[in-house]
Amino acid sequence: MDTPILNKVNIVKVGGAVVEDEQMLTALLQKFAAIEGPKVLVHGGGRSATKMAAQLGIETHMVEGRRVTDEDMLRVVQMVYGGLVNKTLVARLQALGVNAIGLTGADMNIIRAHKRPLKKVRFEDAHEEMVDYGWVGDVDGVDGEALAALIRRTPLVVPVVAPLTHDGMGHMLNTNADTIAAETAKALVPYFKVTLTYCFEKPGVLRDADDDSSVIRDISEASFAALKSEGVVSGGMLPKLENAFASLKGGVSEVVITHWSDLEHEQGSVIHL
Amino acid sequence: MDTPILNKVNIVKVGGAVVEDEQMLTALLQKFAAIEGPKVLVHGGGRSATKMAAQLGIETHMVEGRRVTDEDMLRVVQMVYGGLVNKTLVARLQALGVNAIGLTGADMNIIRAHKRPLKKVRFEDAHEEMVDYGWVGDVDGVDGEALAALIRRTPLVVPVVAPLTHDGMGHMLNTNADTIAAETAKALVPYFKVTLTYCFEKPGVLRDADDDSSVIRDISEASFAALKSEGVVSGGMLPKLENAFASLKGGVSEVVITHWSDLEHEQGSVIHL
Repeated sequence: MDTPILNKVNIVKVGGAVVEDEQMLTALLQKFAAIEGPKVLVHGGGRSATKMAAQLGIETHMVEGRRVTDEDMLRVVQMVYGGLVNKTLVARLQALGVNAIGLTGADMNIIRAHKRPLKKVRFEDAHEEMVDYGWVGDVDGVDGEALAALIRRTPLVVPVVAPLTHDGMGHMLNTNADTIAAETAKALVPYFKVTLTYCFEKPGVLRDADDDSSVIRDISEASFAALKSEGVVSGGMLPKLENAFASLKGGVSEVVITHWSDLEHEQGSVIHL
Repeated sequence: MDTPILNKVNIVKVGGAVVEDEQMLTALLQKFAAIEGPKVLVHGGGRSATKMAAQLGIETHMVEGRRVTDEDMLRVVQMVYGGLVNKTLVARLQALGVNAIGLTGADMNIIRAHKRPLKKVRFEDAHEEMVDYGWVGDVDGVDGEALAALIRRTPLVVPVVAPLTHDGMGHMLNTNADTIAAETAKALVPYFKVTLTYCFEKPGVLRDADDDSSVIRDISEASFAALKSEGVVSGGMLPKLENAFASLKGGVSEVVITHWSDLEHEQGSVIHL
């Protein structure tokens, strides 16, 4: 029985800072719980992983904003993302009446990935270097059919997806949460009208990083190119926007980058082709 | 379409020592993968949790074999059971062609529990004390219907259950894995012919703890009472056997306590009423 509400799905990606602050988390989960119909929550947790690694005497190495993941760091992210953050979110959502289920890419083989090969990275000072990111996964594909079957169950099941995938050969892989959100959104296109919301502690993509009122309301591929070349958009916002455009090209109906309290999209940056 | 094989389910509980030894784990998972038809793996992980707690400077307190779980220890078991052990098992099983899904009691609200109230404990020296176990969960019920629906999917989905439940009020709870296995077995009785196997590094319930050839092949409730009063069975084996009898009374067809390499039940102790 297809009712209109069941034909839509909301994918909400929430960043680390929100997940790791008790007050923000409580408010965000209430907002998320209030979304009607099928939905998916994708979470980060990088700050907690860095903190836990430090407590265990494991040094964190980042290359261009991405975590280098050796065997020890993999254990940390597996514990923090898959156990600590994910299960806390699931338990909290259950308390709000949301029938959440925590998933990594390994669970039901939902996300297949491969270990990133050595990669030539161009650093800000323009020198290039081959980087071994270790146990980091690049996504091959998301099983949209299995996910859609799960999401459509009555009562609704709500996946809470941790930024972990697997290589099909028995190893877990650390995978960027923005990418997981975008790939999940694309994989659900044959089954739903898909909305993807990247939410974080800023009100959207800002023209001036220090001015929260400088949200750029509309970003097209053409204006993105300009913003990039002017240096207005840089750092972690670049891959987020690249993921946004990739999802739109993959058939996702709506991509919005906004404040975590704005899941209704009354403000924020609307991304379009 | 009911084929005979789909009417049976094997619940295998595997203890910490097996999960934490690479060679034993590899062999166990191969054995488990070879079991035909619907199946569930329930795992422990206590030794890893104790080790991780120590690395984080958190002291482990056990009362009569049970872990006292304060807020810090809860974070540790959530990380170790829910993230480290559970996801490693899932990824390893996926590599063996088993479509595993990691679950805690919070996921899809599969296991409802409540925080254990202060409990009067009788110690070995016969003195009694009120013990606060902290964030430890006593199971209220397992959602057999939801679990059966998941297990029966085509291709078969194989739950890998961590010893964690939740209180429905947003808190995860540390819960004994033997109990989870027994409660899960009972909850599946309306849907399957259920076999429950407790497997560990010993070949069964031993008459002489130092003699692996002293396996007691058959244990009935009557003989259990005698073994208990003679002091032959003691310690962690007592709750395991109590769980075994509870499952049999709940309609479970077969309960066997055996070596991890004996999932075919060619040796081990067969428990019956």
